[in-house]
Amino acid sequence: MTRTAFFISDGTGITAETLGRSLLAQFEKVEIRMITKPYIDSTDKAQALVEIITATAARDGEQPIIIDTIVDVAIRKVITRAPGFKIDIFSTFLAPLEEELATHSTYTVGRTHSIGRDDVYMNRIDSVHFALDNDDGARTHQYDKADIILVGVSRCGKTPTSLYLALQFGIRAANYPFTEDDLDDDGTLKLPRALAPYRHKLFGLTIDARRLSAIRNERRPNSRYCSLDQCLQEIQQAEALYRQMHIPYIDTTRFSIEEISTRMIAEAGLQRRFSPR
Amino acid sequence: MTRTAFFISDGTGITAETLGRSLLAQFEKVEIRMITKPYIDSTDKAQALVEIITATAARDGEQPIIIDTIVDVAIRKVITRAPGFKIDIFSTFLAPLEEELATHSTYTVGRTHSIGRDDVYMNRIDSVHFALDNDDGARTHQYDKADIILVGVSRCGKTPTSLYLALQFGIRAANYPFTEDDLDDDGTLKLPRALAPYRHKLFGLTIDARRLSAIRNERRPNSRYCSLDQCLQEIQQAEALYRQMHIPYIDTTRFSIEEISTRMIAEAGLQRRFSPR
Repeated sequence: MTRTAFFISDGTGITAETLGRSLLAQFEKVEIRMITKPYIDSTDKAQALVEIITATAARDGEQPIIIDTIVDVAIRKVITRAPGFKIDIFSTFLAPLEEELATHSTYTVGRTHSIGRDDVYMNRIDSVHFALDNDDGARTHQYDKADIILVGVSRCGKTPTSLYLALQFGIRAANYPFTEDDLDDDGTLKLPRALAPYRHKLFGLTIDARRLSAIRNERRPNSRYCSLDQCLQEIQQAEALYRQMHIPYIDTTRFSIEEISTRMIAEAGLQRRFSPR
Repeated sequence: MTRTAFFISDGTGITAETLGRSLLAQFEKVEIRMITKPYIDSTDKAQALVEIITATAARDGEQPIIIDTIVDVAIRKVITRAPGFKIDIFSTFLAPLEEELATHSTYTVGRTHSIGRDDVYMNRIDSVHFALDNDDGARTHQYDKADIILVGVSRCGKTPTSLYLALQFGIRAANYPFTEDDLDDDGTLKLPRALAPYRHKLFGLTIDARRLSAIRNERRPNSRYCSLDQCLQEIQQAEALYRQMHIPYIDTTRFSIEEISTRMIAEAGLQRRFSPR
């Protein structure tokens, strides 16, 4: 039996969806179809949504789960007409918070950081461009401005992590891929010269060799680059360097980009220049 | 008077922080210092945090606000010893959900999409690399594979929006900047040839001219590129093209990257290939 969950918001829907997915992730055995409905910002849109929810309830044979962060009272009232098990996040928590803070909430649609907000936006965008300019070892002369420098073998997750750190937290992350050029005559990986002055900023990534091989195979099928032997060897060399140089590192096989990024911030004690919302 | 809010989690802290910031954004008049404490995954870490919270309460002269998504009962018990106004998200909503779904929750730390999860990760990463490969008009021969093509003048927000769409939703977004090369002999902007077959995939960005001028000035100070006249002219040409060609567009001056992205998804009816968490 499949249930349906609606995450409803008059804004982006990010808060309703984030909370909804976290809560429903606790019910692994129940199959739940999740639908996000952002920008329900008029009673007309709300009424149209009530009809969708009603039809869904009839089809499922079970009432949908409705998780909402609607702020406007009139719109919210329309939504309450829908058949469903309702989790109303704001009304649950805002009243007690109003009492605690001894003030009324403005209870408006959550304002987010618009591009119009100079300081916050600039930090975010500068960090994105920093990550792009310093991606994949493209430049090494800006490492003094980096908050963190991700290192690791090709395709272990450096680029998406750098971009996530920039977009979500305004952190300036450069990344440098180890290649054969960084190998010593005896085949051991040495700390590349460009990185040596910034050892304290380095954070290593590693990955399961089979997984890496599969990822590389998508890009260059049946190449030496994607062979399991090659992947194993590169990863062993990288991990040996991390241990020798006391570079902290994370195995990306087991973690999402969100987890890798937030763990790095915690472990390296990075300062965020931007916070979503 | 400044209050302090702690967002506490045994995982990334994203859910606690997202909800916490949304709730507290409703109290504009209260100055609130917000601190996220992720990975509180042992009673020792929890005890250390209780001491921080206790010291904060003494310093502020007011109890902190504590918003948590701790799952482990023993850890949660330690946190309850901290002085504070507590919003316990999971315990508030999980019990009623258990009843509604007629099953017990697994009540475990929210598993996110690890890089080890093939399908989900691949879509996410492919989309990030698609955005990078097709950034800034670098390539135009992959537009058939794009879910959406963002167009607009230089520095109006195309690149960060493309990357956000990729990272958060697995959407393949290319972007194309209008330049002087796209102007007709009479000075009007025409639809660039590379874009013509993909008119239905185009989404325009526009921005306030003063704002654009300030952003460009950071990059190339005192250039023609950043002059208000030049910015005004480029924006007028772009908006005229949007109207003439019926290309939907968004003014990025007023919106965050989250808002721009989620509005595009809603308006263009894009299918997400990835959902965070």
